[in-house]
Order: sequence, then structure tokens, then C-alpha cells
Amino acid sequence: MNGSVRTSSWWLALALAGCATPALRGTGDLGLVVERGSGRVLIVDTTARQAIGAVEGLGDLSHASVVYSRDGRYAFVFGRDGGLTKVDLLKQRIARRIVQAGNSIGGAISQDGRLIAVANYEPGGVKVFSSETLEQLADLPATELGGGRRSKVVGLEDAPGNRFVFSLFDTGEIWLADLSDPATPRVRRYTGIGAQPYDGLVTPDGRYYLAGLFGEDGAALLDLWRPEAGVRRVLSGYGRGEQRLPVYKMPHLEGWAVAGREVFLPAVGAHEVLVVETENWRETARIPVHGQPVFVMAQPGGRRVWVNYAYPDNDTVQVIDVPSRRIVGTLKPGKAVLHMEFTPRGGEVWISARDDDRVLVYDTASLAELARIPARKPSGIFFTSRAFVIGM
Amino acid sequence: MNGSVRTSSWWLALALAGCATPALRGTGDLGLVVERGSGRVLIVDTTARQAIGAVEGLGDLSHASVVYSRDGRYAFVFGRDGGLTKVDLLKQRIARRIVQAGNSIGGAISQDGRLIAVANYEPGGVKVFSSETLEQLADLPATELGGGRRSKVVGLEDAPGNRFVFSLFDTGEIWLADLSDPATPRVRRYTGIGAQPYDGLVTPDGRYYLAGLFGEDGAALLDLWRPEAGVRRVLSGYGRGEQRLPVYKMPHLEGWAVAGREVFLPAVGAHEVLVVETENWRETARIPVHGQPVFVMAQPGGRRVWVNYAYPDNDTVQVIDVPSRRIVGTLKPGKAVLHMEFTPRGGEVWISARDDDRVLVYDTASLAELARIPARKPSGIFFTSRAFVIGM
Repeated sequence: MNGSVRTSSWWLALALAGCATPALRGTGDLGLVVERGSGRVLIVDTTARQAIGAVEGLGDLSHASVVYSRDGRYAFVFGRDGGLTKVDLLKQRIARRIVQAGNSIGGAISQDGRLIAVANYEPGGVKVFSSETLEQLADLPATELGGGRRSKVVGLEDAPGNRFVFSLFDTGEIWLADLSDPATPRVRRYTGIGAQPYDGLVTPDGRYYLAGLFGEDGAALLDLWRPEAGVRRVLSGYGRGEQRLPVYKMPHLEGWAVAGREVFLPAVGAHEVLVVETENWRETARIPVHGQPVFVMAQPGGRRVWVNYAYPDNDTVQVIDVPSRRIVGTLKPGKAVLHMEFTPRGGEVWISARDDDRVLVYDTASLAELARIPARKPSGIFFTSRAFVIGM
Repeated sequence: MNGSVRTSSWWLALALAGCATPALRGTGDLGLVVERGSGRVLIVDTTARQAIGAVEGLGDLSHASVVYSRDGRYAFVFGRDGGLTKVDLLKQRIARRIVQAGNSIGGAISQDGRLIAVANYEPGGVKVFSSETLEQLADLPATELGGGRRSKVVGLEDAPGNRFVFSLFDTGEIWLADLSDPATPRVRRYTGIGAQPYDGLVTPDGRYYLAGLFGEDGAALLDLWRPEAGVRRVLSGYGRGEQRLPVYKMPHLEGWAVAGREVFLPAVGAHEVLVVETENWRETARIPVHGQPVFVMAQPGGRRVWVNYAYPDNDTVQVIDVPSRRIVGTLKPGKAVLHMEFTPRGGEVWISARDDDRVLVYDTASLAELARIPARKPSGIFFTSRAFVIGM
């Protein structure tokens, strides 16, 4: 009888443990904080403003980025070492993991959520995987450079219609790849788009792909509504300029802030944020700021743009008021501010301070600090709301 | 021994049943279809393109609308009879329900997700509730009309900063209410904004609140970035016009489609979609269409605007190409098309055909039908991605 009671209790405990561990919850207020260097991601809850778990074993996460499945349950983490890891945010564990290249730089998820594309440096090209199984479905090797080497791929973004658009750093190309049928990808190649494109963005309306150039001043613009019109050069003054200012960190283009009819973008080298109108893609203003900007991000539903900076000014975040173009706030979140992520309706912003081993949460209206979350060398912060945005 | 085994099995079954019923899953691809008239909502899965459950007992759901909690787990359903029901999409049951007024017309959730506001006809005004408990936190009675009656409230939307903005139909007012501290709401009242505002919208950038007028031609515009500048009259030609065309159904303003610098909006009475540029809010074009438009909705990340129509043309949906302003598709989803909802990245659209008791799913690129889902007199369709959008 005692034995039976023990057995039944054991079974009961097992049954309860088996189901009780992953709590039933919505996934809309979850996200990941990348712990650069430790191969770990924190799972965070933006309602509780807390880390609620961690998942280890993701490899080299320097410069890692994340996209989400359409249900918000799974994160796809792109590591620097070519690792592609599917993380289950509810079970708080790795669902699948592959090492798909030797060196890679981010990826994207298709509009329908079925395809994951990864941009690779080595071997240069794009590989496409099933988001369900991580089975490889397509391989798009980049243009050959000779000696068996291929161009590095950068600035990979998703575009409407299960297309991916990306740039070839070494050969100065933009490729627009239609993966509607992954077995037979259709690729349109634009050559001679400019020297050394180093990053790209898709505007929030899904219309334009813009690639920044490292090898010359200017940017390359592709109108995805009219791909037959080709790539044109815009922003001829955008870049390092003739003086070749020392650049401590190339700015991120994904962070370019589209606010209404204007784009706010980080100057290269200079202590300025540039304002560009998107009708003719011409510069209309320059706003003096605290340092060399890295991310310039529009607060959702707000009239504010947030800016962080390269070394040695990377302890600072500034807030620009869009209509007046004035700086209305300066924060000192900590040492080595690497990334910012807004809650989806813009009420709060999460900021990582790598060298202070913490993430800070601020109210975007009052600029009051709401929480600080311990993290080991945090870098990128990515919320599940990215699942619903084109060109992330 | 037998008794003990039975007991242990019973406990085991109970333990498993208690946890196994609601499956662990993400909430990003869920939504509700309102079954007008039967007091029931279907829970739908946009990945499977299926109904996965139903919840009954929600009262009168004619003209019902829905907003979502920030985690995407809970829907707040605003019924026509003043019912406010919190539905748990994971447990597929009512979490809480109150009847908060005699007659109401939609609501909104605050930017921080903590407050639910409801627009009431009877008694006229706005009531604000805790999204957690549905406990009443604030009451904003509308302007008195005499005899104990108060103005009906319409066009209630959320705005950045935990504010709500709404219109008073009978007294021609717009109110901007700051609920940062629900115990002491601060309300700014704009009077004389025009005769009989009947619906409103907040533009996707969170900047403008626009109210359509029933009692005269034109619309009222409030710049939420400069609330001190007051409400101004725009679109003087917008309305029923001097000929007073018969209007079978007043168009919905929430559906006004903002695409880039332009708004596409339903003409009142005429068989036209109007194009308005949002720099000066002037009409720039009129597109002839199949009937009197009701919803004119921009496909996310697309270059297309979708239109449905009032009786007797309510079996038809048309698709307009934005740059060319041409109609590029005409669909016949069924009898009495009431609503359309896009998957968040725009790849698919769900359309309700009330009198054919079905919901249809189309590929927005090919216009191919992908699925049809049986539903009893379906009206509104609302996906959880609305949790991340301002002004819904």
C-alpha cells in the first residue's frame, strides 16, 4: 500500500512536472537579449520587465541577430560562426541547431514564415532553410572572385512576395531573389551598384531597399515596386567624404529611422544625424549630436528618434524631437551601449550596456528608468513583435 | 491494491487532463472571427488557416470589435449591448465579462496595455477599465444634452502616451483624454469641430486623429503632436455633397488606407475611392469603383488597397494598384462581405461573407483562394497582431 502510494505520487509528480514547467502564456510580450561572447540568450518578458529564462549553447554570438516565427514562439538566432539556432521561447530550450557556414552576418524570414535565409561571408552567398526543420532548401552562391572564393553577402532583408534582397560586398551587386518556389529560386542581379555595399534596409512600407556604400560616398536604392527600373544612386554626399574621417564603427542601416516622409540616418564619421526626404531621397538637414551615431531609431508612434554612439561616446543615448529637430534628452545608461529595442507600441525602450553587464528599461515619454536587468555582456535585443514587420 | 491503482490512475488522468487541454503554443498567429448574432467568436489559426475553437456567451455581437492584450493571449470584445468580454485564446474560454453600459460602439487599449476604454451611446460617455480585472477605473460622461441624456461617443482610439481620443456625435466635439493616472484623467475638449462626427481614425504613425462628419461635408483633423494647435477642418468636399446621394451604409474610417504619403478613403454615397495627400490633406484623385465603398484597406507592405462595398454590391471585393490607381482584381467571396483582415506581413487576407456563412482566405499576390472556413454569419475578423499597432 505504501509502495503503491509512493508510485502514484511519483507518477502524479511526473505528470504535473511534465506539463507544469512551460507555463501557458502568450508570446506577444517576449523577447531575447543576446549575451555576446557567452553563447547564451536571455528570454525576457516586457510586461514583467524581467528575464524569465536563459538558453545556452548557441556558439559565437558576437554581432548576432534574431528573427521570429509567425506564431512568435520560435526565435531564429544567426550567430557569427555560421550557427543557425531555433530557440523555443515557451519551453526555454533549443529546438534545432545547425552550423550552416563558416562565417555569417544575419538573416531574414520570408513573408509567409516558411523560409529562413542566411547571409554568409564564408562561403559567400545565401542559404535558405525550412523554418520548421532547418533543412536546407536552396543555395545561392555569390559571384566568384577567383581562387574558389566568392563575394561576401551583407544587408539581407525580406521583401513582400517571399522575396529576399541582399548586397554583395566585394562585387558591388544587389540581388533580388524570389523564393516563392524554393526549389527554383529566381534571382535578378543588379551589378555596378557602387563600391562595397556594407549594409541594407527595407523601408517600413516594404517599398525601397537601400544599401549603404563603404567604398565610395552615396547609397544604392532599389524600388521594389518597380524592380525593372533598376538600382539608382542617391545621397551622393552620404559617406566618409573627401576628408576620410576616422570611423570608429560603421553605422547600422537597419536602424535608419523612417518618420513620416523623412529618414533620419547616421552620418559616417561625423557627429551628425542626417535628415533625408524620401520623395527624391535628398538631404534636407543635419542635426549636431554627441558622437558618431551607430543606431538612429524611430520610436513607434512617437515624434522621437533615439541615437546611440560609437566609441568613445558609447556611454550615451540621445533623444531627438522630430518636428523641432532638437535634442530633448540625453541618457547615460552605462558603458558600451550596443543596441536599443522599443516595445511595439513605443511606450518603453530597452537598452543594452555591454560593459556594465546590464539592460535598462526606460519610459520613452518621461525618460525615467523603469528597470535594470542583469545580463552578461548584452548586445542585441529582439522582441517577438518583429514577427509582424517586413524587412527586419 | 486495486482501489489504490484506480485512485492513482484517476489522479494521473486528472493531472494530465488539467494540463493537456490547452496546448502550449505561440499566440502570434491567432485571431477571432465574430459571429454576428449568435454571441459566439471563433478562434482561428492563421498558419493552419482553420478555426481551432469557439467561445460562446458574449451577448449581442452586431458591430462588435476587438482589441488584444500586449501578450496576445487575451481578446477584449466590445459588444453592441454594452458587454465587455475578456476571452482567453489559449484556454478557449471567457476569462471575465461585464455589462458596462446599455449600448456601446467599440473601444481601445492603452499604449501600456493596462487600460481598456469603451465608447458608449447609452449612457453617453467613455468608461475605462483595468485590462487585468475589468474593474472600472475611470468614468468620463459626455456633454449633457438635457433631460439627463448625454452625447453619444464614437470613433474612440488609443494614442501614444496612454491617451484616448474620441468624438461626441451629438455635440460636435473631440476629446483627448490623458489616462496616465487613471484616478485623475486629464481631458482636453475641442468644441465646434463640425456637425455629427460619426467615426474616427488615428494614422499609423500615431500623429493624426481624423473624424468624419455626418452632418456636413468635410472632416475634423487633430494633430496629436501639437494638441495645443486645435482641431482644423479638412477635406471640405468630403461627404454626401449637395446632391445628398442615398447612403446605404456609412463607410468605416478605421479602414482608411494610409499608403506612403497618401490616404485612400471611401467616398460617401458615390462609387469612388478618394486619394488624399497627407501633407495638406487635399484630395488629389478619384478612382471609380464597383459600388459604395465601406472599408478601404492598405495591404501591409504592399502596393495594393482592398475595397468592399455596401448593399447591393456587397458580394464584391476589388483590389487597387496604388501607383497606377488601376483596379487589378475583382473577387466575389460571397454574399454580404462585411470585413477584411490582412495577415500582419500582408501575404494573405481573410474576408467574411456573412450570408454565405463562411470566411475566405486569399493569397494577396495571386488572388488565389487558399481556404474557406465555415462560420455562422461572420462579421469582424481581428488578429492578435493588432496588439502591436497604435490607434486600432
